[in-house]
Order: sequence, then C-alpha cells, then structure tokens
Amino acid sequence: LFETIAVYDHKALLLGAHLARLKHGCQVLGIKLDSTSLQKEIDCAIQQINDKAVLRVSITMGEGGRGYKNPDQPQHNRILSMSDYPVYPSSNNVTGIELGVADIRLAHQPVLAGIKHGNRLEQIIARTQWQDQWQEALLLDSDAQVIEATQSNVFIVTKNVIKTPKLNKAGVAGVMRDFILSSAQDIGVNCKIVPLSVNDIEHADEVFVSNSLIGLWPVKLFQQTRFNNFTLSKKLLTYIQDHGAIPNI
Amino acid sequence: LFETIAVYDHKALLLGAHLARLKHGCQVLGIKLDSTSLQKEIDCAIQQINDKAVLRVSITMGEGGRGYKNPDQPQHNRILSMSDYPVYPSSNNVTGIELGVADIRLAHQPVLAGIKHGNRLEQIIARTQWQDQWQEALLLDSDAQVIEATQSNVFIVTKNVIKTPKLNKAGVAGVMRDFILSSAQDIGVNCKIVPLSVNDIEHADEVFVSNSLIGLWPVKLFQQTRFNNFTLSKKLLTYIQDHGAIPNI
Repeated sequence: LFETIAVYDHKALLLGAHLARLKHGCQVLGIKLDSTSLQKEIDCAIQQINDKAVLRVSITMGEGGRGYKNPDQPQHNRILSMSDYPVYPSSNNVTGIELGVADIRLAHQPVLAGIKHGNRLEQIIARTQWQDQWQEALLLDSDAQVIEATQSNVFIVTKNVIKTPKLNKAGVAGVMRDFILSSAQDIGVNCKIVPLSVNDIEHADEVFVSNSLIGLWPVKLFQQTRFNNFTLSKKLLTYIQDHGAIPNI
Repeated sequence: LFETIAVYDHKALLLGAHLARLKHGCQVLGIKLDSTSLQKEIDCAIQQINDKAVLRVSITMGEGGRGYKNPDQPQHNRILSMSDYPVYPSSNNVTGIELGVADIRLAHQPVLAGIKHGNRLEQIIARTQWQDQWQEALLLDSDAQVIEATQSNVFIVTKNVIKTPKLNKAGVAGVMRDFILSSAQDIGVNCKIVPLSVNDIEHADEVFVSNSLIGLWPVKLFQQTRFNNFTLSKKLLTYIQDHGAIPNI
C-alpha cells in the first residue's frame, strides 16, 4: 500500500484523509498498521522540508518466504521517501489539459477497488500507451465505463451538477476526489456518484481531473471535443488552494 | 515477472518452457530480456546445487522515479534466488489432497492473463482465506468459472478426456500445465481447453492440480465429493517423473 502526500510549509496536506485510506487498505490486506509510529515518522520527515515536496508512505506486509502465504508473524515495513514536487506547466491548472484514452481496460476486482495498493501493472501499462500528446488519459473498465485517469480521478459538470464514477469495482478513491466532493457541497454544488460513459464526457459542460499533487486540472480538449467553460473547475481550484489542500503555486 | 523453477542434479527442469513464458511476459510488459546473461547466471546458480532446490528468477523493470511512467532507459534487474525445496507430505502425490474454494474471485484482465507477473494480491488474499483444512483451493473468476488453484493449475478427467480451463482472461499458464497437456497427447489421451464450472469438478471422474514443484496432486476430496479413481492422474505423474520434469521424490 502507498500514499502520495503533498508536503508544504512543514505540513503534510490532507494527512488525515491519507491515513484513513491507508488504514482501510491495511484492513483489507490484513496488515496491522502502527499508526503512532507512522505519525511520528511523518512528523519527523516533514520537519526537514521548508518549501514543498512529495512524501510517499509505503506499507509492506514484510519479509516472508517463497509462495503466497503471508508470514506467520509479519514484521510490516513502513517506508517514507521524499521527492521533489513534480513540475507541471502552470497552464495545466489555468487553461486546461488535453485528455486522451488509454487502450487497456481496468479489471473488476471489488475486493481491491478503491484502495491504493501497489499492484499497479494496469496503470503502468496504460502509461506506456500514450506519450506527450496528452497530459492525462482516461481509463475505462471492461464494460467501457469511465473509472478514472492514469494518475487522477475524473469529474464532469453537467447543468451545474458534479458527477464522478463509483469506484466499487475498479479505480483508486483519491483523497483529492473526496476533498473535491466535500468542497462542492461547501460551495452549494450538488454531486452525484454515477456511471460515466465516454459519451457523457464528450457532452459535459466541464471536465476535470484531480489528485493530491495537481489539485485539479480542467480539461480543454478530449479527443475531438473542445471545452471552453471552466467556471466550476476554477471555483473549486480556488477553494482547494484557499483551504491549503495543495501547496501555493 | 518471475519464474519458479525446480532444480535437481545440476539441472533446471523444464527450463526452456520457463524461459519462453518469461520472454512472453517481457514482451507484454515492454522489458528487454538479456537471455544470454540470464542463461549464464542460471547455469552458474545451478552448478552449486547437488540435490534439489527451487530457483526463483525475477525480472524487474528497474529503478525509476515516482509515478507510473517507466524510466526512459530502464536498467532491468535479473534476480536469482535459491530456496530449499518445499516439503509436502508424500501422500499428496499418492493418496491425493483435499481441495477447497477461496472466496475471492479473479478479475478478468486479458492483457495480463497467462503471464507470471508479480502483481499477485489476489492470490495472496486467497491464501489468507484458507488454512490447513485443505492442501489447495480453487480460484473462480467473476463469472464463477474455475480458472486455477491458489498456486497450481486445475484439470479434470471425464470419460478419459482431460479438461482444463482457458486462461485468456485470468490465471497463470503454468509450465507444468503445458507439460501435462503434451504428456497426455504422448500417452494417447485427448485434452480439451474448455470452461469449467464447480459442478464440472464435482462430477468429474478424476481431478488433479499441477505446478512445477509438486508435479501433480490428485484430488481425493472436493467439498462433499470424494474421488477414488486416480488412474490417469497416476499415469501422468509417472510420466512426469520418468521424463525428469520434477525431481525424483
């Protein structure tokens, strides 16, 4: 399991939500998480960061023998690693990105859906299927429904209602996704968790993607469809920034 | 990607088939396998083994940055590790095993089906769902079809025809599975790659599971169904042993 956490000004942003998802993943996989030690280690790691950085927290089952059986008395590993904050063109947030579709379809595995486990071969293969022609690519499931994008969650706005797919069969339930859903409520916008098709994306008023590092990127072009309306996307991005959920850009 | 190879008397058994599956996996994942170096490393590793052992060969994409994008110039790792040969009761081969069913259903991912990649969370979760009441457990897919067992492939015999599931949506195409299919032809028994249900297992004349280390285990009990006929299972096990595909037991 892992979490990718934005660090800024000696704070791990949205840390409570990251730890909650991590704990849920640990329950699914049968890992006993030592939250107290982890919290101390995170506190220590972020003390050293003056500007902004990315903290990756990985939790492993621990060393075991050959075969699929977990060790009888697993010694779980907590691995914290700090990376430079990724540099994306500021236009991604401002004038939007170009969004494509990856070829690989996400498998339905309800037991693992939502959690951020490390078995990410589908995403890694997806990322080989597009280069720099797009800034992100949709991932569809085996029923051709939209689930997420390679490294982000996907939202559309239709008639002032925000819609994003249910993630009970596939996909990662992003911490920023949750924050956006609650932010939308705060600003009086209704949200619906509903199935989304490619056709829904094409006919939306606005489309945007989110994750904990980028915050929110509006989509300006999806295949042949161009979007000019970024009203709600910008409102939400401002809200996210004002509430300290991403570093000041 | 990995391969689990039986080593006996300074030989890596069924090595050609293991390397062929590994090469196929490398093609799927976009890894350039240095077969010449790997072959030398395997030769060197098995020189040191006088009796029997297990050689695990792992191939990784190599070190990269954060995120799902492969490194631009990946330096793939080849990792060889030798383990003791697992000790199973000899009755497993002779009088058969008890077979159960794991709860988790295998997801359909045709891109990854068949190859022995390291994203094995499904199998690891399956292995937590049964303890010592069985020696193996079936894994069904999301359509409730039989795909394989936790660490082995599954076969049934019905009216002197061997049947085993197609692995184009889920499952690992075992090297011993292939060897058994070709062995069956050698001894004049027809094989069919067909969908198998739990009901088919219950009504089979014989049921057995296979992998590269165990060779073949006949099933004596599956849920409430007891099997007494091991005719073809034993014939195939003898064939496997006589052709040096597993160490002499």
